[in-house]
Amino acid sequence: MTTKILLNCDMGESFGNWKMGDDESVMEWVDMANIACGFHASDPHVMSKTIKLAQHYHTQIGAHPGYQDLVGFGRRSIPHTMDEISELVCYQVGALQALCRYHHTSVGYVKPHGALYNDMMANTDVFNAVAQAVAEFNIPLMILSSSDNQQYLDIADDHDLPLLFEAFADRAYLNNGQLAPRTQKGSVYVHQDDIYNQVMQIINYGSVTTIEGERLPIEADTICVHGDNPQAIALIRKIRQDLNAFN
Amino acid sequence: MTTKILLNCDMGESFGNWKMGDDESVMEWVDMANIACGFHASDPHVMSKTIKLAQHYHTQIGAHPGYQDLVGFGRRSIPHTMDEISELVCYQVGALQALCRYHHTSVGYVKPHGALYNDMMANTDVFNAVAQAVAEFNIPLMILSSSDNQQYLDIADDHDLPLLFEAFADRAYLNNGQLAPRTQKGSVYVHQDDIYNQVMQIINYGSVTTIEGERLPIEADTICVHGDNPQAIALIRKIRQDLNAFN
Amino acid sequence: MTTKILLNCDMGESFGNWKMGDDESVMEWVDMANIACGFHASDPHVMSKTIKLAQHYHTQIGAHPGYQDLVGFGRRSIPHTMDEISELVCYQVGALQALCRYHHTSVGYVKPHGALYNDMMANTDVFNAVAQAVAEFNIPLMILSSSDNQQYLDIADDHDLPLLFEAFADRAYLNNGQLAPRTQKGSVYVHQDDIYNQVMQIINYGSVTTIEGERLPIEADTICVHGDNPQAIALIRKIRQDLNAFN
Amino acid sequence: MTTKILLNCDMGESFGNWKMGDDESVMEWVDMANIACGFHASDPHVMSKTIKLAQHYHTQIGAHPGYQDLVGFGRRSIPHTMDEISELVCYQVGALQALCRYHHTSVGYVKPHGALYNDMMANTDVFNAVAQAVAEFNIPLMILSSSDNQQYLDIADDHDLPLLFEAFADRAYLNNGQLAPRTQKGSVYVHQDDIYNQVMQIINYGSVTTIEGERLPIEADTICVHGDNPQAIALIRKIRQDLNAFN
Repeated sequence: MTTKILLNCDMGESFGNWKMGDDESVMEWVDMANIACGFHASDPHVMSKTIKLAQHYHTQIGAHPGYQDLVGFGRRSIPHTMDEISELVCYQVGALQALCRYHHTSVGYVKPHGALYNDMMANTDVFNAVAQAVAEFNIPLMILSSSDNQQYLDIADDHDLPLLFEAFADRAYLNNGQLAPRTQKGSVYVHQDDIYNQVMQIINYGSVTTIEGERLPIEADTICVHGDNPQAIALIRKIRQDLNAFN
Repeated sequence: MTTKILLNCDMGESFGNWKMGDDESVMEWVDMANIACGFHASDPHVMSKTIKLAQHYHTQIGAHPGYQDLVGFGRRSIPHTMDEISELVCYQVGALQALCRYHHTSVGYVKPHGALYNDMMANTDVFNAVAQAVAEFNIPLMILSSSDNQQYLDIADDHDLPLLFEAFADRAYLNNGQLAPRTQKGSVYVHQDDIYNQVMQIINYGSVTTIEGERLPIEADTICVHGDNPQAIALIRKIRQDLNAFN
Repeated sequence: MTTKILLNCDMGESFGNWKMGDDESVMEWVDMANIACGFHASDPHVMSKTIKLAQHYHTQIGAHPGYQDLVGFGRRSIPHTMDEISELVCYQVGALQALCRYHHTSVGYVKPHGALYNDMMANTDVFNAVAQAVAEFNIPLMILSSSDNQQYLDIADDHDLPLLFEAFADRAYLNNGQLAPRTQKGSVYVHQDDIYNQVMQIINYGSVTTIEGERLPIEADTICVHGDNPQAIALIRKIRQDLNAFN
Repeated sequence: MTTKILLNCDMGESFGNWKMGDDESVMEWVDMANIACGFHASDPHVMSKTIKLAQHYHTQIGAHPGYQDLVGFGRRSIPHTMDEISELVCYQVGALQALCRYHHTSVGYVKPHGALYNDMMANTDVFNAVAQAVAEFNIPLMILSSSDNQQYLDIADDHDLPLLFEAFADRAYLNNGQLAPRTQKGSVYVHQDDIYNQVMQIINYGSVTTIEGERLPIEADTICVHGDNPQAIALIRKIRQDLNAFN
């Protein structure tokens, strides 16, 4: 293994009386908690509880801003002007930052959620609007690692914005370095073994095996894992223990 | 006139396509803009526009957090735990602060809105919860000036929190130093002359004439004015010109 | 057992991606499904799915309107004018009714939710406002059975509105016929045996044993049960089987 | 003038404390009030007030359902499944229908709002989903009159759904019978004379003069007018008086 790779996971996605995920069981095993900021999930009280949980396990806190769409969980692309994109990112990151300061901690990075994340990777104008907002916080922006990383590094440089690149534990890649579209058969790994193998290959060899069967080098500061069910949580724990053995 | 008294006014209360108030006409004449933060009014884009307008006229920016109640405009008291009160204040002030930083300015003070303001003045627990949140921002909290000011100063001291006291231009006071309840006849001044006279008495003599006809000393760092209609805006302008002549 | 007693249960309380309850497991065993209408929980798609589930099991559909308060799940009393109360009940029942008609079924009764239910039982004006709205639908209103039933029947008569009285399976009663307040120790039964015994006593003897140890006659058309967890669902199933054996 | 043409206008677009439009001044002069249903604008109380205003002036009431997007005023296309489209239309029309029945009147037609209207005209699947929902209410659906009217009539026939065709008073048409896109110069008439002339040509000759200068026959049961400002309201009044003189 050449570099230390961190595990990031979406957290704090409950809302009011509705519980989502099992943050209490997952927080211990991941390095970075992407905390929802109230627009697509969460509310000030859930955010506060999630911050305290992250503190307890010394997990780094990231802001996870999304489109304002509770009923659609931020997964629907909603048209915005570029100014509105910058403003909604600022608003949400600032809100989480203030709650972090209230609990004597801070936001370490920003990773957009759902449709905002997809729109950012699909549209350079949206990427610029997000970058411009995040740059004000002097923390890195986490984006999808692909064959286009240099292009994003160049734009981010214009904003003096550091980037973090993430790989996906459970998504198949194409030879061209992009994620296989969800509509393609086999694009999302459902077997824990497949997920484990992809994580280990990224960690140990800095590569993935594409859906077409070739070895693709992949640059990753962090791997996105999901803790939706007991099996998934057990896998995260196993990956963590392997990582600890290495480090 | 013994001290410089500032005019504060609620601003940025539009929401999406709905316009409220005439901020463009009022901003020039007031010293402090209480900007709504998206829970009872406003949205990230309206907040951003209002910040820029305040910057243009060198008006100080204050956060105006409220209960999450768009349809009720934050005027309905909604039960919360004290933790939730602190958290919703943190969230909203942090959001505005981030948007201010994005525009290279900052939040200068916090004034709670509507039912949250009333609950804060009526219930010491709520006051403490608000104070605890605002203290983290190292900016003053604006509250209603009354005969109980010392009590609030003592609590605020525990939080190392400076206070600003405000008087109301258009509300009648009781001999006991409290506002006459809105249900009482004559409790809200509607004639511009009555409003003007109360403002001038506060500025020049540090007192108001109560609804019962007595002279009541009132400590005020700032006077809350409203700019809802052309008459009201004309009055603010007149007061501003008188103040400028004095200062 | 003198009369047939129906089991009613809150259903359709999921919202967007957030799941609440296990409607699929409970629907078969209850007679009446109180379906949330989008103000405190649910959305048009969840409502539609819940209606179809109720149809599948021939469970009667009731509208379960609440205050517009997703983050508080309709459990916080929010001040309204009496006109607003009538209007929000109309709106929600009408929305569910249209979705029912779309699926070729109909709404059979109305049971207010949470804080609206409590306010209706605590304040005759609110009761009147709810009654006036429900009367337009020509279906009964379900309320809490207590020693005051006649008083409510009299008011309902003025609206030509039939009432259904419900008893609670898991709440302790006082000698005066009211529910023991939640703040009182022992007011909410947590052991399945206690819940089962209270249900059986209501069904077989038309009475409950109060928290003070006396036998209190209780008039009940229906008993409210909860299906929050596997134990609770197992109990509902057991009660259903006992009821079937009797009928 | 060959047929009686009705004037329709969007109404009830206020929300909570935010006022939009001047319904009190416009209602008298139009035949059909498209009343917002709480998803993109309005709330149960505003709906109730608007219904009463329409009753007072004997104006026909139409439901004006939209996407659930207050901050975007329903003008942003939000991805939905076709089932969700049918369900959100059902929900909103049902809610308005219940409030109408509460006031002893009824909903006479449905006209989708904003992005939902545009999506319906641009995508046959969306049109089908809307049609399927509206058909349950046994009232007509109002759509844009264009050269494709027969295509929509055929689909509507499958749902046993009557259609109403509307023309726009202030939009320029293309030779192909479509509206000139808003991005095209001159596509929206701003001079009252241009609007008046187009209305009169529709009424008297059943045609419009396209932006390319040709005479285009247009089939219209109703013309959509806007009452956003005093000038626009004066024009509506003038058109009404002309219509009254003819009829």
